[in-house]
Amino acid sequence: MSLSLNQKTINRASLAEAVDACARAGIEAIGVWREPLADVGVERGAKLVRDAGLRVSSLCRGGFLTGDDRDAALDENRRAIDEAAALGTSTLVLVVGGLPPGSRDLAAARERVADGVAALAPYAAAAGVRLALEPMHPIYCADRGVLSTLDQALDLALRFPAAQVGVVVDTFHVWWDPRVEAAIARAGDRIAAYQVCDWILPLPPDALLARGLPGDGYIDFRTLGAAVARAGYRGDVEVEVFHADVWAAPFDQVVSEVVHRYAEHVAPTG
Amino acid sequence: MSLSLNQKTINRASLAEAVDACARAGIEAIGVWREPLADVGVERGAKLVRDAGLRVSSLCRGGFLTGDDRDAALDENRRAIDEAAALGTSTLVLVVGGLPPGSRDLAAARERVADGVAALAPYAAAAGVRLALEPMHPIYCADRGVLSTLDQALDLALRFPAAQVGVVVDTFHVWWDPRVEAAIARAGDRIAAYQVCDWILPLPPDALLARGLPGDGYIDFRTLGAAVARAGYRGDVEVEVFHADVWAAPFDQVVSEVVHRYAEHVAPTG
Repeated sequence: MSLSLNQKTINRASLAEAVDACARAGIEAIGVWREPLADVGVERGAKLVRDAGLRVSSLCRGGFLTGDDRDAALDENRRAIDEAAALGTSTLVLVVGGLPPGSRDLAAARERVADGVAALAPYAAAAGVRLALEPMHPIYCADRGVLSTLDQALDLALRFPAAQVGVVVDTFHVWWDPRVEAAIARAGDRIAAYQVCDWILPLPPDALLARGLPGDGYIDFRTLGAAVARAGYRGDVEVEVFHADVWAAPFDQVVSEVVHRYAEHVAPTG
Repeated sequence: MSLSLNQKTINRASLAEAVDACARAGIEAIGVWREPLADVGVERGAKLVRDAGLRVSSLCRGGFLTGDDRDAALDENRRAIDEAAALGTSTLVLVVGGLPPGSRDLAAARERVADGVAALAPYAAAAGVRLALEPMHPIYCADRGVLSTLDQALDLALRFPAAQVGVVVDTFHVWWDPRVEAAIARAGDRIAAYQVCDWILPLPPDALLARGLPGDGYIDFRTLGAAVARAGYRGDVEVEVFHADVWAAPFDQVVSEVVHRYAEHVAPTG
């Protein structure tokens, strides 16, 4: 396993700036987000990354499959699949979406996710891209992601061939789960991405920005990382931080801190 | 099932004021908190409730078993058990505690909970009180409750006789869980308390105060309530709201709204 910089960690950076920051820090992989990719254009973006010799560990993100306009959501996800293929990454992270407006029917929302994944999986397979279902911390269940545990995401993924649908293990989302180590073991080769950031307290006013640098909070990264390694995962480890102070800091300073924190708290030891 | 007012919903009220508000609204049961009980004294408090003809649906709360001073925590819980017995309730709600200061060892914190419950169960049994383990929403895992799912709380409860240790089903804490209905069915006669409040967004700056009146948020109370009824629960339904605006409002106005919301969103239909 080795460090990848998820672009979100330096949220203000353009793709070119993020690529340059990785190169300067000796980071070999990057997790790309669709918005900064769109800013530069998919072809130019893909060339930027390729010319820098970087691997793309994942594209973030597709998903949002629970809304009322199914066709529009599927179209948007097909575009995301195409972009992942253009970038040369086999992993498209899916944030599946929360309850539709006005609805309290969680079971129905979860069915929409299953339906959407089924509609997209063949298209993704044809493009050589794997849909990576990201279970989200229950704090986001209502408005962002109705897949709430790794077991639940895995149950859905297992309906499809392993090459078509996998899961994301993101420490922030799963660390509290009493079944997390068992679920990681069960996931095995379904683990399409491993992302790390910390659970911090107090929660900031915007709970989306509660995802701190490893070491700033409560998560035991070594234990989770060892479980991911035992499950057979050998891919990149994306540091993906959502935090106002981190986002406000100079890019190189953040990336340097990411390298340091990864070595200190995350990287496999011994 | 019938409505009980958990005292926390009118957080500024003294026990006497809460009892009077229940009487005026025709509510037959109350969930008492230890702090306002201590303000008036246990004996006088018990007499207040008894003289008003109210049932005490639960005493909130014991727990906090994960800290470094085990003996002090057990002593405090024995006092809480005595208070529950004095109030004539068989249910002491336990909020088990978060990670100890400076620790990231969630498994060890959970072991401390199991150890503490084992130490307290015989004492509770002798007093005719059942320890009611409350699984908490994962948003509170780090700082408040390391039991994170109903299944997990139930796994611990099942190590003890049913009369000694049960579980709390609180909609706020469990609504997101993909296994919640199965876990409620599995809980059966282990369900010692059923508490309702809503998950609201945006989360307020203090996430402790994110627990709204039923109907203000995203939770489907009918589905959860039906599962609790199918499991055989016939006890009181506590409306327990933590919300700054609710706490600031006049007591009778809040209690009247609670009665209305209970009928509209929570009470079994048909």
